[in-house]
Amino acid sequence: MNTTEIAQAFTVLCAKGEFEKAGKDFWADDVVSCEPMPGDMARVQGRAAVEAKGQWWYDNHEVHQVEVQGPYVHGDQFLVRFTLDVTPKGGTRMRMDEMGLYTVRDGKVSEERFFYGT
Amino acid sequence: MNTTEIAQAFTVLCAKGEFEKAGKDFWADDVVSCEPMPGDMARVQGRAAVEAKGQWWYDNHEVHQVEVQGPYVHGDQFLVRFTLDVTPKGGTRMRMDEMGLYTVRDGKVSEERFFYGT
Repeated sequence: MNTTEIAQAFTVLCAKGEFEKAGKDFWADDVVSCEPMPGDMARVQGRAAVEAKGQWWYDNHEVHQVEVQGPYVHGDQFLVRFTLDVTPKGGTRMRMDEMGLYTVRDGKVSEERFFYGT
Repeated sequence: MNTTEIAQAFTVLCAKGEFEKAGKDFWADDVVSCEPMPGDMARVQGRAAVEAKGQWWYDNHEVHQVEVQGPYVHGDQFLVRFTLDVTPKGGTRMRMDEMGLYTVRDGKVSEERFFYGT
């Protein structure tokens, strides 16, 4: 699969809410996941650690709806936009608007980097 | 100005359709502009060359409407989404959906990289 095919298959899974399967199918074993905020989650490496990060997020957010736009492709990278209607545990229901920038290496996602609307 | 402030000021100008001013205010002298398609426009370097690329585009497209979303920020990079209603010269009116990924260095945009919806 080339980057466009990977981007499309990955995005289809995200659009169905199957984020875990998207990760299992497409993350490299040494995938790196980067968040803009400083702290423990700023840079997480390795499939197990990235899965644990995802699990933490699901355990701490109730997801009401997810909308996905994309993918947008350039070379070995692609972008997916996520708009989420969520309630953080003990918090207030909110809308999140974010972009994932994915880098593909040897047919797998080697890095995901999240950008947040300001 | 930090990256978020540059991203916001840049995006405000784009939202007003003032792309030329956005470039003049924020491009580095050695700015690099990258398109995913192979050819002469794949990688253009330097303010004069990037301005000429923009001029070529304006000369060859009638722009009916532009909508801008963003910016989305991570570290020294930000994203802006552009949805354009345009008619290429001699062509058919169409909707374009694209993302610009901008890298900031020393308070200026050192690289812009465009991603297209597939």
